[in-house]
Amino acid sequence: MPPKRARMSATKSDDDEPKIRADALTPTLALAESIYDQLDRGEIPRMRLPLRTKQNLSFQLKEGVWRLGRTMGTRSARKLDGALMLLRTFYLVDFINEMATDKKTSTLRELYYISEAWEDAKFHSEDESNLLIEDLEVMCERLREDFRLHPEENGASVIGDLTIKEKNRRGIVKTIHCKDDVGDGGYSLPFNVEKEKISFVGTNAKFVIAIECGGMVDRLAENNFDEKQGAILVHLKGQPARSTRRFLKRITEELKLPVVVFTDGDPWSFRIYASVAYGAIKTAHLSNYLATPSAEFLGVTASDIENYELPSDKLSEQDVRALEAERTDPRFGTAEWRAEIELMLKNGKKAEQQSLAKYGLNYVTDHYLPEKLTEMGVL
Amino acid sequence: MPPKRARMSATKSDDDEPKIRADALTPTLALAESIYDQLDRGEIPRMRLPLRTKQNLSFQLKEGVWRLGRTMGTRSARKLDGALMLLRTFYLVDFINEMATDKKTSTLRELYYISEAWEDAKFHSEDESNLLIEDLEVMCERLREDFRLHPEENGASVIGDLTIKEKNRRGIVKTIHCKDDVGDGGYSLPFNVEKEKISFVGTNAKFVIAIECGGMVDRLAENNFDEKQGAILVHLKGQPARSTRRFLKRITEELKLPVVVFTDGDPWSFRIYASVAYGAIKTAHLSNYLATPSAEFLGVTASDIENYELPSDKLSEQDVRALEAERTDPRFGTAEWRAEIELMLKNGKKAEQQSLAKYGLNYVTDHYLPEKLTEMGVL
Repeated sequence: MPPKRARMSATKSDDDEPKIRADALTPTLALAESIYDQLDRGEIPRMRLPLRTKQNLSFQLKEGVWRLGRTMGTRSARKLDGALMLLRTFYLVDFINEMATDKKTSTLRELYYISEAWEDAKFHSEDESNLLIEDLEVMCERLREDFRLHPEENGASVIGDLTIKEKNRRGIVKTIHCKDDVGDGGYSLPFNVEKEKISFVGTNAKFVIAIECGGMVDRLAENNFDEKQGAILVHLKGQPARSTRRFLKRITEELKLPVVVFTDGDPWSFRIYASVAYGAIKTAHLSNYLATPSAEFLGVTASDIENYELPSDKLSEQDVRALEAERTDPRFGTAEWRAEIELMLKNGKKAEQQSLAKYGLNYVTDHYLPEKLTEMGVL
Repeated sequence: MPPKRARMSATKSDDDEPKIRADALTPTLALAESIYDQLDRGEIPRMRLPLRTKQNLSFQLKEGVWRLGRTMGTRSARKLDGALMLLRTFYLVDFINEMATDKKTSTLRELYYISEAWEDAKFHSEDESNLLIEDLEVMCERLREDFRLHPEENGASVIGDLTIKEKNRRGIVKTIHCKDDVGDGGYSLPFNVEKEKISFVGTNAKFVIAIECGGMVDRLAENNFDEKQGAILVHLKGQPARSTRRFLKRITEELKLPVVVFTDGDPWSFRIYASVAYGAIKTAHLSNYLATPSAEFLGVTASDIENYELPSDKLSEQDVRALEAERTDPRFGTAEWRAEIELMLKNGKKAEQQSLAKYGLNYVTDHYLPEKLTEMGVL
């Protein structure tokens, strides 16, 4: 039996609703005002923000997501380092507001280079600029996409009976059906998948299957699995980008479709599932927006490797260490996950999802998936 | 000045034209017949094929591509290894013909798992199956896509004024304009970009710019560079997939558009350019189909790093070794390339293409690219 998560819908309350995006920049101006007022009063300026350390993180078992605690840290201009950090913060706020005026966006990497013009306050590494952006997200309770900043990551491809409206760079809205209106490559998610950019028009599908490997997506599409079973195929492209995770979250909430995750059977792929379902430490402050706690793991499980006698590889030392870490990772805290992790360690084997081809090209769509989905109550 | 390549159009002759694809499988059956005849005559069966060793490879300076020489090797069933190899080859030929009958395709990885059913003749690693497929390509003078086999690699994304027709998996032909009919993610190339799959309808563009980083593609699209300059943007996604390279080759030949390549400024990115323009050792037997010798390198060059005072990083030891290897790589054999490689070694610096953001988000589209393209005679 695959690890079953109790069906939990995301708890919704007014506190959880994303703040109105139209005023995305207001908190940044409030931040600037606060520093200005301190200077005006003759005080040495300082900023307070929640600490993103391990000690201040907790996994909320009931909701199934990571959350930041209440411990705050302070950035003060009393020392040179702190002063430069404050200066850097406001150069960034200024740049963000400039982009909004010019209707531009920027990659994280371009921002790192833009800071060359800030001289002493420039970033020394891209890690440094990424951390500051995260600080801003936490302080202002916004997504970096609200600040018009985005990474290089490829968003997912989507194939299936799903009609969306996308507002493109020129502001023109296009209606796109993710099967009839796109090539075999499917519909490519842009980096911003918020409501002002993408809205859902409709679907006749019954569920979403989020898949790790492109070859498996091709297999399902070629075998017409999406049409036969009423599935929307989402190609995660490995560790899913934020836009992918946000998209899955929105599909669950707005279209009320269940999401199942289908990856290789190894500890790294289990973490792919975990980042879809529970969030990641790095984005703990955004779990509400990015995590889909109701997503269920379909496979490949350690039990599958045994039951289906799949061609497998021996676990490497790193694999074993990763599994041992997962023993104490609260995201894998259910009885079913613990059993699967122990079984994988005991058997010492991992397997790829495409190993199902051992039984022929149609086995995965004719047998494996229907069996698993019926067990899970999706079909 | 960027390394200038003399404008060389691909030399076309009847020998170079791809064999008629409709008879893609005929050579495989001829191969089988030949073995059958040998067995019939009571001989120990053997196969002959061009060796793909370094000694049998040469770089054709005039045409600017790698080619295999005439040295042949023999696979004989005299020894067990050779016999298993022959058996494996014909299991593969059988699978290919079965796929053709069922109108299926397969990833390289699925093929590796399919071979589980071949028992003693099964593949021991994916490298082994990949090598056998290359053997088949060489012996039959076909592309693996003709054998309905394809890798996982992501093909490129295309954004711009280009109208194509794509025949999808269901055999339905769709007309797609790579700007008006697609979302911001652009048009995703499928893994097979041959004429029976994709045909060009038309374009008003003046040139194609193939770009390494997604962030730079976004920058050009956001700044409307494609419309203002009549450019088709192609996102290479790092080392380009075969489908990407084939697509660029076809655009050059059929639409007569020049192709420029815009990457980061470091030895690994120079190799991205080289694989677009000259082919790679691994696909030496397919240079005719995959290499675009007329493609020109736009930047980032070592001279650019100096002239534009770009933020740079120090070359690592591996970078230095890669550059030293490029000193004797015939693909970088022109005077201009030699000068650039020496300059990079002398200055010890490499830079990313997005470092142009030092001068603001619009600098690359308002200044850098127009300057370079004018120098190159493209604009």
